[in-house]
Amino acid sequence: MRVAGLISGTSVDGIDVAVVDIAESIEVVATATVGFPADVRQAILSVSNAATHTAMIARLNFLIGELFAEALESTGVALNTIELIGSHGQTIFHEGEPAEFLGRKIASTLQIGEAAVIAERTGIETIADFRPSDIAAGGKGAPLAPMLDYQLFRHSELPRIALNIGGIANITVIPANARAEDVVAFDTGPGNMVMDAVAPPFDRDGARARGGQLNTALLERLLADPYYQREPPKSCGREQYGDEFIRRTNIDIATATELTARTIALAIGRYPATREVIVSGGGAHNGYLMERLRALVQARVTTSAEFGIGVDAKEAILFAVLAHETFHGRAGNLPSATGARKPMILGKVSRGTSSGSGA
Amino acid sequence: MRVAGLISGTSVDGIDVAVVDIAESIEVVATATVGFPADVRQAILSVSNAATHTAMIARLNFLIGELFAEALESTGVALNTIELIGSHGQTIFHEGEPAEFLGRKIASTLQIGEAAVIAERTGIETIADFRPSDIAAGGKGAPLAPMLDYQLFRHSELPRIALNIGGIANITVIPANARAEDVVAFDTGPGNMVMDAVAPPFDRDGARARGGQLNTALLERLLADPYYQREPPKSCGREQYGDEFIRRTNIDIATATELTARTIALAIGRYPATREVIVSGGGAHNGYLMERLRALVQARVTTSAEFGIGVDAKEAILFAVLAHETFHGRAGNLPSATGARKPMILGKVSRGTSSGSGA
Repeated sequence: MRVAGLISGTSVDGIDVAVVDIAESIEVVATATVGFPADVRQAILSVSNAATHTAMIARLNFLIGELFAEALESTGVALNTIELIGSHGQTIFHEGEPAEFLGRKIASTLQIGEAAVIAERTGIETIADFRPSDIAAGGKGAPLAPMLDYQLFRHSELPRIALNIGGIANITVIPANARAEDVVAFDTGPGNMVMDAVAPPFDRDGARARGGQLNTALLERLLADPYYQREPPKSCGREQYGDEFIRRTNIDIATATELTARTIALAIGRYPATREVIVSGGGAHNGYLMERLRALVQARVTTSAEFGIGVDAKEAILFAVLAHETFHGRAGNLPSATGARKPMILGKVSRGTSSGSGA
Repeated sequence: MRVAGLISGTSVDGIDVAVVDIAESIEVVATATVGFPADVRQAILSVSNAATHTAMIARLNFLIGELFAEALESTGVALNTIELIGSHGQTIFHEGEPAEFLGRKIASTLQIGEAAVIAERTGIETIADFRPSDIAAGGKGAPLAPMLDYQLFRHSELPRIALNIGGIANITVIPANARAEDVVAFDTGPGNMVMDAVAPPFDRDGARARGGQLNTALLERLLADPYYQREPPKSCGREQYGDEFIRRTNIDIATATELTARTIALAIGRYPATREVIVSGGGAHNGYLMERLRALVQARVTTSAEFGIGVDAKEAILFAVLAHETFHGRAGNLPSATGARKPMILGKVSRGTSSGSGA
């Protein structure tokens, strides 16, 4: 078997490469040492020397692995009945659009929650780090939910939309009898992010929005944002709807809730054939928001609970399903949703103990 | 197939768990949400908000992946002849001994150089992140070289020691006809670290040391450090022999070189049956150091080049061999060397494109 080995040592002199043929003995086919560009070496040394912050990330990575393993144990499901774990981990950085970095255009994402710890503590093969593979293929590393939506909600005759209302709201459009490549997914605009910010920690069941006074002028002005008319794929985030948005607009809870409902409805309105909208995410608990959606959308509006998928559990289910795809050597991203050049087998497999049940 | 899914969202509310049975349909077996301890949540938010530093690590991770892939391509070996890559990546933090962290004892290590990028660019299955699995099993995550030393240098009749002189010097003791569990490995003390610091960038062939004046009083005082008498396993690093050591001792190059040779010889002297010492690492290029070792050590002193392993290529070869072990479902760590509770299948497997040659 011909195998390549790659390492850069702690002196950060450069990348040592060896290509070897391994059989009875080890035969070296080629070796090389390739220096780092000076600015890259400098950047590596700077993060290596920033002991406090880098140590915090390294230690958190291992600690979160422990906590994830304990969270699984807390369900009471016997670990020896579980064959595989898919762990998303905790995102601490995500930049799906390439940014200029040391002379290159680099998109990146960083999740922590050490999979080797989860695999060792549970004895179960663990797949983690799902987003980097999609980014490596030119995708944005998100959204990944469309694969689950497609598997769960695809219907031979009913065109459906899966709507997830997290901090940001996003939809997965699943035409009747869709093939994977027919699926479209994008962010519609604010989900709970603006509502939560103006009625912290959150407007329970939308009661405050229901009793509030709508600022029609502000609403019309905000709805004129060209984002809502742009063709998908498109994505938004805290950069658009974070603290700066709240300060600039001085928006109230009634107007925030109406903005959320109207921008979701606008996005769904692009697909007039849609017969059912299936809601998940924390926003599904907001009775007033759901009421507004039902008023604004032509299709029947229901929640994922109708399909046996609790509105709060859907993301965890997603990573179980993505791990299952990877385990079977199948791609987990939908290029039509993430913008990747091609389907990718997502994630990295940690097997743990050589004699463990998970191997 | 029963699969668990784990995620903590960007709002860092807690860990969502779902256990599902996946067959024709997806059946939810259990779900739970487990909150983070307040200090852990705070720490996660602090690294997520420290945009500059965390972004630097995330972007470097992807950039280094690109550079590693390009380094492999630069060897000119046809990528379609390579079946597997083992990438160590770039260590930016390593703390093999557990440290107090948010109320737990946490050992950790952090290598960057995104394997998903290497796998995608080359089309070759890539195994990376070898150290965390050993730490997860209670090991120090180092040294990993003993597995390679054992495979390369084990002899039915000759007791041998593999000596690597990097920044720190370490030995792997391989008794005649050894089983894996008979192998002992530990750091002997300074390698090139002190010599390089006092004769930067390095004392070519030991010329300056050879012409220098030995500070015998200082040497004797330094050799009295109880570290050198301590029973293995033991490890040392930049904490012992870095800038602070240089300032405190005001050591010169002749004394630094003699200290290096004498501490290596002391360690080897613990194993008087040894017949051959096989040197690798940058220190093997230092003719005067090698001369001193030959004078101080009873056994025959040679280099790994005699066995077809270039003294500078050994670490890269190591990660090719460790990837090969993982690929075949075999453990890569030697618990007697790292202190782990058990042998572990090291690393994480990235497969890349679903139709790629590496799958």
